[in-house]
Amino acid sequence: MARNASLSGFHEWLPQERLVEQHVLDTLRRTFELHGFSSVETRAVETVGQLLRKGEIDKEVYALSRLQDDDGNAAASAKADPSQLALHFDLTVPFARYVVENAGYLSFPFRRYQIQKVWRGERPQEGRAREFTQADIDVVADGELPFRYDVELALVIAEALSALPIPAFKLRINNRKLAEGFYRGIGLEDTAGVLRSIDKLEKIGADKVAELLQTELGATAEQAAKALALASIRTEDTSFVGQVRALGVSNELMEEGLNELEQVIAAAVKSAPGSVVADLSIARGLDYYTGTVYETVLVGHEQLGSICSGGRYDALASKGSRKFPGVGLSIGVTRLVSRILSQEFATASRSVPTAVLVTLADDDSWTSAQEVAAALRARGISTEVAAKADKFGKQIKYADKRGIPFVWFTDDDGAHQVKDIRSGEQLPADPNSWMPPAEDLKPQILTA
Amino acid sequence: MARNASLSGFHEWLPQERLVEQHVLDTLRRTFELHGFSSVETRAVETVGQLLRKGEIDKEVYALSRLQDDDGNAAASAKADPSQLALHFDLTVPFARYVVENAGYLSFPFRRYQIQKVWRGERPQEGRAREFTQADIDVVADGELPFRYDVELALVIAEALSALPIPAFKLRINNRKLAEGFYRGIGLEDTAGVLRSIDKLEKIGADKVAELLQTELGATAEQAAKALALASIRTEDTSFVGQVRALGVSNELMEEGLNELEQVIAAAVKSAPGSVVADLSIARGLDYYTGTVYETVLVGHEQLGSICSGGRYDALASKGSRKFPGVGLSIGVTRLVSRILSQEFATASRSVPTAVLVTLADDDSWTSAQEVAAALRARGISTEVAAKADKFGKQIKYADKRGIPFVWFTDDDGAHQVKDIRSGEQLPADPNSWMPPAEDLKPQILTA
Repeated sequence: MARNASLSGFHEWLPQERLVEQHVLDTLRRTFELHGFSSVETRAVETVGQLLRKGEIDKEVYALSRLQDDDGNAAASAKADPSQLALHFDLTVPFARYVVENAGYLSFPFRRYQIQKVWRGERPQEGRAREFTQADIDVVADGELPFRYDVELALVIAEALSALPIPAFKLRINNRKLAEGFYRGIGLEDTAGVLRSIDKLEKIGADKVAELLQTELGATAEQAAKALALASIRTEDTSFVGQVRALGVSNELMEEGLNELEQVIAAAVKSAPGSVVADLSIARGLDYYTGTVYETVLVGHEQLGSICSGGRYDALASKGSRKFPGVGLSIGVTRLVSRILSQEFATASRSVPTAVLVTLADDDSWTSAQEVAAALRARGISTEVAAKADKFGKQIKYADKRGIPFVWFTDDDGAHQVKDIRSGEQLPADPNSWMPPAEDLKPQILTA
Repeated sequence: MARNASLSGFHEWLPQERLVEQHVLDTLRRTFELHGFSSVETRAVETVGQLLRKGEIDKEVYALSRLQDDDGNAAASAKADPSQLALHFDLTVPFARYVVENAGYLSFPFRRYQIQKVWRGERPQEGRAREFTQADIDVVADGELPFRYDVELALVIAEALSALPIPAFKLRINNRKLAEGFYRGIGLEDTAGVLRSIDKLEKIGADKVAELLQTELGATAEQAAKALALASIRTEDTSFVGQVRALGVSNELMEEGLNELEQVIAAAVKSAPGSVVADLSIARGLDYYTGTVYETVLVGHEQLGSICSGGRYDALASKGSRKFPGVGLSIGVTRLVSRILSQEFATASRSVPTAVLVTLADDDSWTSAQEVAAALRARGISTEVAAKADKFGKQIKYADKRGIPFVWFTDDDGAHQVKDIRSGEQLPADPNSWMPPAEDLKPQILTA
């Protein structure tokens, strides 16, 4: 981790670091599949028109152009054409398009996970890369999506995060209906504007937000105080309901949101006690959320930002009058892996998959050495064969330098021995039955 | 496969197709790791200067530009600046850069596999996509790379391809030193030009190539005939050596190439009999190959083009006077998977990972159903819980529609039963011990 990326914002891992990333990805895949999510990948590119349909993110998009067009002319400027191709900046918008296009081939409610890279042309900073991997789960229905999925997805994500080598986390949950209904109930109609201001709470503080609400949205001091009072509510159980009621606001949409959030929190607290908070300050920037919203921080690493966010979106995908409401969450894999590596929450026990190096007594024995290697590989033992019949000391040094724990010797009579180069212990062995200790078979991920 | 990509040249698989692709990717990963290759990923983007350093591929590159720069101005034209970012078009050039940048952290010879998407702005056609996945293995040395790796990599690739659900393949191998030495030996000095013409053999035929050699490269009719005679040699054993010698040309570089190719073919024929051919017409377009070159076709699907190509490159990566010669091969995963799916060489037994749906007797039983599901998942059984307490018939229909083989019932007394919805058989079961038959645990990949 002493290395700097040669291109700012674009991480590349060394083999030993990549093993930690693979462990994270494999763990997420296993958890998602155990919960019945199918794997889907979408293309890396969308049309600019598709990408900019929702949200205010146009500054972050990387547009594509061919260096030369088919006639060899210089490519046109990247600006403006909605049919132009650009790299996706998240996996939700492409997934919504995929569902609409393939609706006839999917059975609903459709559950999928998607683990891919995304790109954003932002200024790089700690926790913010220009290329990063996201791991998403979503459930999308054709018509109506039962609210219970908002609960289920919180549970799946809590289980997935709990399986990773990371510190304790807090899954902060809110509900847009609750917030919007409350704002309407106190007479603030530009609910998107209020949400945008509330979203700045952590950055600029309550006083500045109160000022914004009054100067930009025409709120009275009392309205601003009420909006801030709502945003200050944080409970690790369903007691937030009473606290909201105590603010004395009445609104139908608010009641719907209160009821939904109560259900999510009640169920999530039960299966992931200590990891879930009702946090009524959570707004989430993207415009497409319509109900439950989620954000997640690592305890003690809050400045890293959210490592897992999402929400319910009832209007992102549609085909004529057919609606495909969904709910989903996205784990910021690169952000998590960067932190795991820099804080050494986990390390790989070695950098190579190889458990055994088969040495060569002479150059002609390469072919028989391949047969020994094939016998070992048939039992899942990762094996390399030396490329040259250097002196044994040099061959052992090669294994040592690469972190390969065992070297294999075959003498002229065909007798086999295997040596653990850490302990120096050397014993007779049969290529058709020998196994290394379980902890040496593959690189282990060691947690701090 | 009746579907058309909504963006020409950009494939997207349905969940059931994606399972076949995952099977291919998992199989390759397992094989590569068993042979001691470490996983590496490089960023999707390189600078244009880096990408265009070798080979004539500038028409195919997708350049990136931010839709708006930081001041909100329209982005500049994509043309010309070598520091501009562009998407990589293969994994070899980025890997060479990675090795040079991280040389101090790697131990050599460095063995890595890399499975990632690449992009080329070509006109899409059968077997040619604009976004596709490649699976590469390479070995790179610091200084000298023993020739034996050229042999080893052919063996690893043959083993990897043999493990896939594809028809018989032919790995065609040639050696640039052999060809270049031979051309020099007959007095043709523009060896790159001759190779380019020979590369067109399959497309335009021998007569046209002979014409090209004479009109464009100033060859005599006799020189052209000799070059074509060399390119017509194809043997499934080392008898090509005699056939080359019979052409009566003598050249030192040619002898070196002959010797190398003989070693590769002798070893490869031995471990993959019937799958390896010495084919002296193979040229490979990219300029960076300097010795062994490989190409692979599926028998009966030759018009698909090469599904696995590569070669030895001695001068692709360097750092001052330090050289990093390498040898590697790249499998065209998307091309292979497209063919596997369209020809139904393999299909997934179901489209979802889910083996069991836990039904709900009433809405309040959702939480206890989650406990049943957790008990099943703890033994690796992929399980979903119904979201609503619909009539059992409707819940079973949901499982049937999704291809989930088992449904689980818990009655008011807490007695459990599990039903195989294909046979209708229903039996008492314990959530802490019941297992589905092995073939139902996960989606199986069924080969034709």
